[in-house]
Amino acid sequence: MTVNPADSAILGGLFGTDAMRRVFADEGRLQAMLDVEAALARVEAKLGIVPQDAAEAITRAAKVANLSPEELGASTRNVGYPVVALVKQLGKAAGGDAARYVHWGATTQDILDTALVLQIRDGLALIRADVVRIARALVDRAQKHRGDLMAGRTHLQHALPVTLGYKCAVWAAPLLDDLARIDALRGRALRAQFGGAVGTLASLGDKGRAVTEGLATELGLAAPDAPWHVARDALAESASVLGILCGNLAKFATDIILLMQTEIAEVFEPHQAGRGGSSTMPQKRNPIASEYVLAAARGVHALVPMMLSAMAQDHERATGPWQSEQLALPQIFVLTSGALMHAASIAEGMTVDTARMRRNLDATHGLILAEAVMMAAARTIGRDKAHHVVEHASAKAIAERRPLGDILKQDKALDLPAAEIDRLLDPAGYIGESEAVIDRIVARARGVPSG
Amino acid sequence: MTVNPADSAILGGLFGTDAMRRVFADEGRLQAMLDVEAALARVEAKLGIVPQDAAEAITRAAKVANLSPEELGASTRNVGYPVVALVKQLGKAAGGDAARYVHWGATTQDILDTALVLQIRDGLALIRADVVRIARALVDRAQKHRGDLMAGRTHLQHALPVTLGYKCAVWAAPLLDDLARIDALRGRALRAQFGGAVGTLASLGDKGRAVTEGLATELGLAAPDAPWHVARDALAESASVLGILCGNLAKFATDIILLMQTEIAEVFEPHQAGRGGSSTMPQKRNPIASEYVLAAARGVHALVPMMLSAMAQDHERATGPWQSEQLALPQIFVLTSGALMHAASIAEGMTVDTARMRRNLDATHGLILAEAVMMAAARTIGRDKAHHVVEHASAKAIAERRPLGDILKQDKALDLPAAEIDRLLDPAGYIGESEAVIDRIVARARGVPSG
Amino acid sequence: MTVNPADSAILGGLFGTDAMRRVFADEGRLQAMLDVEAALARVEAKLGIVPQDAAEAITRAAKVANLSPEELGASTRNVGYPVVALVKQLGKAAGGDAARYVHWGATTQDILDTALVLQIRDGLALIRADVVRIARALVDRAQKHRGDLMAGRTHLQHALPVTLGYKCAVWAAPLLDDLARIDALRGRALRAQFGGAVGTLASLGDKGRAVTEGLATELGLAAPDAPWHVARDALAESASVLGILCGNLAKFATDIILLMQTEIAEVFEPHQAGRGGSSTMPQKRNPIASEYVLAAARGVHALVPMMLSAMAQDHERATGPWQSEQLALPQIFVLTSGALMHAASIAEGMTVDTARMRRNLDATHGLILAEAVMMAAARTIGRDKAHHVVEHASAKAIAERRPLGDILKQDKALDLPAAEIDRLLDPAGYIGESEAVIDRIVARARGVPSG
Amino acid sequence: MTVNPADSAILGGLFGTDAMRRVFADEGRLQAMLDVEAALARVEAKLGIVPQDAAEAITRAAKVANLSPEELGASTRNVGYPVVALVKQLGKAAGGDAARYVHWGATTQDILDTALVLQIRDGLALIRADVVRIARALVDRAQKHRGDLMAGRTHLQHALPVTLGYKCAVWAAPLLDDLARIDALRGRALRAQFGGAVGTLASLGDKGRAVTEGLATELGLAAPDAPWHVARDALAESASVLGILCGNLAKFATDIILLMQTEIAEVFEPHQAGRGGSSTMPQKRNPIASEYVLAAARGVHALVPMMLSAMAQDHERATGPWQSEQLALPQIFVLTSGALMHAASIAEGMTVDTARMRRNLDATHGLILAEAVMMAAARTIGRDKAHHVVEHASAKAIAERRPLGDILKQDKALDLPAAEIDRLLDPAGYIGESEAVIDRIVARARGVPSG
Repeated sequence: MTVNPADSAILGGLFGTDAMRRVFADEGRLQAMLDVEAALARVEAKLGIVPQDAAEAITRAAKVANLSPEELGASTRNVGYPVVALVKQLGKAAGGDAARYVHWGATTQDILDTALVLQIRDGLALIRADVVRIARALVDRAQKHRGDLMAGRTHLQHALPVTLGYKCAVWAAPLLDDLARIDALRGRALRAQFGGAVGTLASLGDKGRAVTEGLATELGLAAPDAPWHVARDALAESASVLGILCGNLAKFATDIILLMQTEIAEVFEPHQAGRGGSSTMPQKRNPIASEYVLAAARGVHALVPMMLSAMAQDHERATGPWQSEQLALPQIFVLTSGALMHAASIAEGMTVDTARMRRNLDATHGLILAEAVMMAAARTIGRDKAHHVVEHASAKAIAERRPLGDILKQDKALDLPAAEIDRLLDPAGYIGESEAVIDRIVARARGVPSG
Repeated sequence: MTVNPADSAILGGLFGTDAMRRVFADEGRLQAMLDVEAALARVEAKLGIVPQDAAEAITRAAKVANLSPEELGASTRNVGYPVVALVKQLGKAAGGDAARYVHWGATTQDILDTALVLQIRDGLALIRADVVRIARALVDRAQKHRGDLMAGRTHLQHALPVTLGYKCAVWAAPLLDDLARIDALRGRALRAQFGGAVGTLASLGDKGRAVTEGLATELGLAAPDAPWHVARDALAESASVLGILCGNLAKFATDIILLMQTEIAEVFEPHQAGRGGSSTMPQKRNPIASEYVLAAARGVHALVPMMLSAMAQDHERATGPWQSEQLALPQIFVLTSGALMHAASIAEGMTVDTARMRRNLDATHGLILAEAVMMAAARTIGRDKAHHVVEHASAKAIAERRPLGDILKQDKALDLPAAEIDRLLDPAGYIGESEAVIDRIVARARGVPSG
Repeated sequence: MTVNPADSAILGGLFGTDAMRRVFADEGRLQAMLDVEAALARVEAKLGIVPQDAAEAITRAAKVANLSPEELGASTRNVGYPVVALVKQLGKAAGGDAARYVHWGATTQDILDTALVLQIRDGLALIRADVVRIARALVDRAQKHRGDLMAGRTHLQHALPVTLGYKCAVWAAPLLDDLARIDALRGRALRAQFGGAVGTLASLGDKGRAVTEGLATELGLAAPDAPWHVARDALAESASVLGILCGNLAKFATDIILLMQTEIAEVFEPHQAGRGGSSTMPQKRNPIASEYVLAAARGVHALVPMMLSAMAQDHERATGPWQSEQLALPQIFVLTSGALMHAASIAEGMTVDTARMRRNLDATHGLILAEAVMMAAARTIGRDKAHHVVEHASAKAIAERRPLGDILKQDKALDLPAAEIDRLLDPAGYIGESEAVIDRIVARARGVPSG
Repeated sequence: MTVNPADSAILGGLFGTDAMRRVFADEGRLQAMLDVEAALARVEAKLGIVPQDAAEAITRAAKVANLSPEELGASTRNVGYPVVALVKQLGKAAGGDAARYVHWGATTQDILDTALVLQIRDGLALIRADVVRIARALVDRAQKHRGDLMAGRTHLQHALPVTLGYKCAVWAAPLLDDLARIDALRGRALRAQFGGAVGTLASLGDKGRAVTEGLATELGLAAPDAPWHVARDALAESASVLGILCGNLAKFATDIILLMQTEIAEVFEPHQAGRGGSSTMPQKRNPIASEYVLAAARGVHALVPMMLSAMAQDHERATGPWQSEQLALPQIFVLTSGALMHAASIAEGMTVDTARMRRNLDATHGLILAEAVMMAAARTIGRDKAHHVVEHASAKAIAERRPLGDILKQDKALDLPAAEIDRLLDPAGYIGESEAVIDRIVARARGVPSG
């Protein structure tokens, strides 16, 4: 019974990808735990702590198929954690003496945390690949639309002209920094957890560190300098980094939603039969994918402070904050995968109405370029006078709904030839650094490694 | 595949009740939607808008068993909402002409919102019953432990004596206000949604209001004065009220966790074999239920601002905020049910070590009653001198680790007979309003209706 | 030195009102504390606990002007709370013996909490008045614009026609429920706090309850059944109720921002010279007031969970959560006052371009009324055929950019006379319940008491 | 009038440092803006865009003392931003022709954002220094207390022995990662903002990039590849990094609060006359500094999602989210400074009761070492039997309140000599990796650069 729509058979596909769900759902969670137990047994066998054949039996048995979900559920409901039952069932599946060597020297949280790190590793790989994919799609579009003029808007008002290519570069730029954040995070988050009850590994005598390092190597993780049972900063950073990424996607989705408005209609989500349409309102084309980007981003943002406040953990292993991480972090990964999935579909498939972009740009009859005229006139008649003249002409253009150019050409005070006025009012001549911005971002994006 | 532990077959039992999950999980969600569609058809038949036999066929067909989850999932993934596919499948199940009358005059959000209200109604009933149950258990304990002395603690330091009964009354008191909040919320939240595409019901001609009122009556809900497609205050209030309730439960759980500490060990969660124990550390008794109360409360608190920020909905029906409500509200109900479940188990089953309570109270050798002696002495020797004498004696008691009483009795400046000092240092004589507080809260709790 | 812009001499006016700032700023905070101390002294004098002339001296001295901010600040920095220094300075100002009777039987938190309740009382009065003011302005406009047609928009796409009057009614409706929330909150929040160190009032012997009730009466508050030092639900509810209110205002502001877009330009914030304009971009009219409504709402929403999580208070008086309330609640009130201030200015002063509303409505050449034609045609040619015909005509209208009416009139399959098609395509005939919604909300708003 | 306690003359000292407040308060804010305007003029003079003497006059005039707070406030309240008035006043103060060259080519947000970056730079420098200070104090203590035994606690229950030195190392470890986070953040956040109205710098013709790079160099910042008017990821990262830091401090403060409990009383905040004491309850020593660490951390954590959700900015410069950043980010820096200040005072000045630590460790009569005995016995009599014997003995020890050692020595089934049992029950022999953890963290902390 799934309450959370992100897990629902009906709604889940809108909120996250199946690939990410496989990493974080029950089966992935349990397999990651089994992988940790098996790796631990193998390392301890190498170090002579447990028998070699026990380790082999444990490794063979460490498959989710060997677990009974019913028994696991019943035990977990009673004990409060799934590890006791998992260890018992793994031992039983391994058979013979092996059972007594499962989980040797570990505490529940060692297994849960290291399993979580394995899930984070796989989750970050999926996320990083999608970020690269979106960034590349956006810089491709930046190139393609580098000359497609449209109104630049500030405070949702026409301001000055830009190009769609420039806009795509601005969407792509922060994603490149997200990649750097993800890479730095990996260095801090992909650390094994192994400390025993209070982090001291006392039950392993003088072999504690060797087991920790061996376990980390076995799983392809780093060994931490200190146990992090109660130092949850890397987990909180995982949440923050994905929160920032989702924020960047939310900016993109916000723009798409606004550009799809009936009165603007410049850029659209890729058309998909049946999506976002209305049987009774044929004129509609709803920005469904963008809406789910926003919903997912909001879901992630709500859970970030939950991870931050869960850092106030008591003593050597804590009372409660730890469980609340479980509610937040897997959900953060799944929702981020959903936001990325929708954002990628838009970045790759958006449809563009360049004619409409131009019509909208021209709809204010040249007012959007008043600044350009004023800056040019300032050079000859001085800034104050230029400002006065252009402001006056603009007011007149608005009041009379006439092109600004016509009015300016009739204005004697403005000492500019008509052809110069036409040139100044051509938006293509007033996009400044737009192409240079595109070029810089394209170059950076091309240099990003895929993996 | 369930990512969210609150929905997991393995972990779910720790985060929510099955009863609440039945209300909010996919099946409950879909059945509620079907109930709304069927009620709509019946009302429209009564008003002559759709044929009577169509309404009957729709009503008969409105069972989740008639839906195909696969088709629903596929369509939802494409369309962005489940309603289109549900209407189609319901029509098909109803057969014949009925299909064309399903969903007549409604918009997707009418169905989703009214279905959500039905779920809220059922969810609030479950929650209210649990709050009453916990409040009653706590006032029973307030009565039972009205004379059981213990240290009152402020800033986690011994302050003055209280009784466990008093503490139980203080735990119970805000729950009674929670009941009032739930009842007021019902008046605002249990309203049908019915407005068609933009809330005007234009397609129903002059019958729009009659259908709205009929639908509300049919479902046992109120009819709203205006459509609330974009006025989400009652939903945000639902989240807030449950957030406040969970806050009250978190206070209770916090105290239990602190009282169970090895060095305090006064009150314990009910013992349950296997729970909260450790195979290698037999001295341990972990406060598992309380920890899950805190985790659930934190989960709910994180989602409340998501509901608040989702209120900024645009125009007649919005882009995105609405989907994020889906992520938050069902989860809020389920986690609240989990917090209540655990809190009820503690309120009803807590074990109390009154001897230890007394030992802890006495552990500071009377210092906890320094205030009582000072207030008494102030009457005869003046407040300033009394303060000086008692402060000096207290410092001496701490330094020499001797009972404060012994030191005070030897102090000539303190003009009090030994028997009087003994009387003043008896914590039972210094609990002030404790019993009156208990009596007031018990009386209020006894007067609360169950339903 | 003010870091928070809401308190800044430069920026503060944009984030909150001076009236609210007077209630919650240092001076208001200190005066409220002095008022509580003075009331306590008077009540205790009446009950014979402290001398009458001491109470009178304390009352006379209880003015902020008698406090030294420097000494208060220095002591607070050391002690951790301002009450010790305030009591000392108040005693000194009262002179003579009075000093020893200041704060008799109270604990620091009794004073801070009751003072906060006095601030909440005054703050809620300001807020309630503004909500009434905005609701009335909106229903006035609902009446005025009841026939002014505009496009109803869902998912930011044209959907069906509405009127601006209807929109105003939908904005106003949830504010009326906010008034009910505020009134219910008053009953729970306006309670005195008085309990002494652990809430038992033991130092007052058998007079504890009488002092509590007297203090409450003296201050115009209710006496609580139990001390609420660690039951913070009413404070969290204060935050939630204002959070919901701000959510409703954010919906209003969101719509205004969207309606002011260059391409839409239907409704505007009141014009104010210099505001929201740009010296170089004369065509701009930025939605500044609405932006500050959104910023304030977001500020409030961020602080609500801080109040909720602060409910997990330990034992009889807590370690830390209490201080975090101080960071949140005053700020919530000030930001809410700012949101209300800006919303009121818009509600009262918005300018409306009804001609543009109509042009936008017509811009899709009748497509916005495709539903109306389809519903009418369904009666004669059946729903399926009607849907097919209208959908086909709509697609043609979009492709050829021709009016839907022209195409429909040429369509033989649609058995409707041209005049009937014209009638159906008249948006004025397709606004359904719009006027009835206005009437219901106006009636409710008219019935709301001002106070 | 300061509402926010973090800015209050009375309360402010408890919530933030004066040094940080100087960076972010009005004066610092305005001076940073003036610094940006002056640097811009100088760079534009170098490039021949504005006259050299104008740039010099502007630079000379760019002092807060030349601004009128009243006029700034009045203009800001009207315009919605302080930049228009600041530019006007700066021009006036510069005198002559200079006025017309102030702010050349810039947009309001260029100045506000770059000024904010200067504040972030200074704020991060203060924060980094404090983190280094705390980390060093903690590793000094880790060394000092490397042999001081105490109970390790999990779920607030005695688990196994640790040392205070180990605990200090675990507190210090995540702070070292915080330093890495701050350093990486600097690379992304310390970028100038300069783009003009829509980020294209069109008004500067072909000199836009040169001005951007010159401005960045002049201010010691990096030049961004693209304008970040609407790409707010580095700001959100600033908030997140400080949120994570505060989370680490909250863990430390939580432990201190718990260790100071009357019944535990092992480690204390540094004694300061008057702080955390109670006049009537001389036995109390409240953890005031720790409480303010928690309050500040909660304040920061509440504001992080506000920064994240503000990332959904529209088009080229946005409507509203940008203002909400102003409410959050300065406050985040100030509260973080407060948390660091209190944490540093504790790290440097904590007092330790090693005797009490030992008494508490021994209070469970050896039960805390049951695991050690069991692991030893397992080698000779097998794990199952060992477990059975030790569990039985533990239960007996608890029931009879006798030392576990006594009972074990009488147990024939346990084939261990008494001396061996004594050795196993010596906590000093069962702290495993504690010293190695200390050594690793000390080495890392020693290698951290101060700056």
